[in-house]
Amino acid sequence: MILGIDSSGLACTAAVADGDVLLGEYTVDYKKTHSETLLPMIDALFKEIGVEKKAITAVACASGPGSFTGLRIGCATAKGIGLALDVPIVPVPTLMGLSFNCAVSDRLVVPLMDARRGQVYTAAYSMKEALSAGGAAGLPEEVLPQQAVAVEDMIEKVNALDRPAVYLGDGVPVFAEKLRKLTRVNFSFAPLSLSRQRAGSVAALGTLLLAAGKAVPAADFRPEYLRLSQAERERAEKEKGSHV
Amino acid sequence: MILGIDSSGLACTAAVADGDVLLGEYTVDYKKTHSETLLPMIDALFKEIGVEKKAITAVACASGPGSFTGLRIGCATAKGIGLALDVPIVPVPTLMGLSFNCAVSDRLVVPLMDARRGQVYTAAYSMKEALSAGGAAGLPEEVLPQQAVAVEDMIEKVNALDRPAVYLGDGVPVFAEKLRKLTRVNFSFAPLSLSRQRAGSVAALGTLLLAAGKAVPAADFRPEYLRLSQAERERAEKEKGSHV
Repeated sequence: MILGIDSSGLACTAAVADGDVLLGEYTVDYKKTHSETLLPMIDALFKEIGVEKKAITAVACASGPGSFTGLRIGCATAKGIGLALDVPIVPVPTLMGLSFNCAVSDRLVVPLMDARRGQVYTAAYSMKEALSAGGAAGLPEEVLPQQAVAVEDMIEKVNALDRPAVYLGDGVPVFAEKLRKLTRVNFSFAPLSLSRQRAGSVAALGTLLLAAGKAVPAADFRPEYLRLSQAERERAEKEKGSHV
Repeated sequence: MILGIDSSGLACTAAVADGDVLLGEYTVDYKKTHSETLLPMIDALFKEIGVEKKAITAVACASGPGSFTGLRIGCATAKGIGLALDVPIVPVPTLMGLSFNCAVSDRLVVPLMDARRGQVYTAAYSMKEALSAGGAAGLPEEVLPQQAVAVEDMIEKVNALDRPAVYLGDGVPVFAEKLRKLTRVNFSFAPLSLSRQRAGSVAALGTLLLAAGKAVPAADFRPEYLRLSQAERERAEKEKGSHV
């Protein structure tokens, strides 16, 4: 039984999957800090599905990129549960988990998270294997790795790949005009039900990644920030300045 | 602000959407009767997203087919909220709502709900309009209407349509062997995160149906069972027998 967690973005979300069934999922996209929301949500979820937390055999957790505070809350929670129950963590790259919302798409799946400072956290995946005849869901294929870039740069890369695309994520409303103006391939935006982080996708993908041997001991799990935090960046700039 | 509800199947699920954002979603797939689960879930959800229930402007509700008891619970809840707040109901055909989990697929989307007695509740949709260039999500196009048929009959219809398909729903694990053996088009099964009813999809589709003028006054809302209930069927058979 896998617990999925994602607090990398605006939404705070938890889900429980067992075998090929999603037993429960709870998602809240609200201003409240994820530190207040996540644990009570997990608690309520287990109560509703009538399962003891000790039935968890692995924790799948969005491992970044994303909000620094959000990632630390999610990762600390995952590690805490992992250490308490002596179960491994399955790190799920945030953008791969988000893309798995579109696991039934033959298009290039392009998640866009607003990373501020004119950048997006983005990547591109193909769900070819997940859609292979026979029906067993496979892992997304990474077409472009997770990166923090200007949205214009990403649109150019999507244009160069020259295949129909689907955009999703909280970056879509922020950059909708640029996406519409600059994208030269056939494209669409995912509907609201598929456009934000869902722990159901993290748990489903975590199930596949666990089977592929991608789990780590709880003590070794680390988020992957992709960029320096604001505090680190400011210190680096200050130090650089003081050497001039 | 739209409240979405689906208690037509094994999962009991509620969601709140506002504009193009899913504010929250709560799904539980557990043996407990939906009558015990649904209202406390809606309550918890509104508490977590920090919104008053009177902010609801419409209730989107899975309108059938599905479990008779489940549909009655969902529809009664929707009508109660609709009448109390004086807001309309948006009936969302259960299989269209379920299919909207796959709104980003270019394939024929084929939901299958186990209807017992060798039958499935099924239909087929194309998401062509939802995927049209420009990115505004459109309504699913009905390729085959909602129906209760033997799964073999449905597979023949899918074969005759001769295009790649994606199967989803609680009927998939029940009929997986037949689906694999008899389907002659390229096909896949949706992953666990997309294969069961989600109120997020009901709320997203409800938003589109509301804009298309498909709401009804709460007092007029009725579920669409597609088949007679067991009690009605048995009485009909008995009456038929007594006339022989």
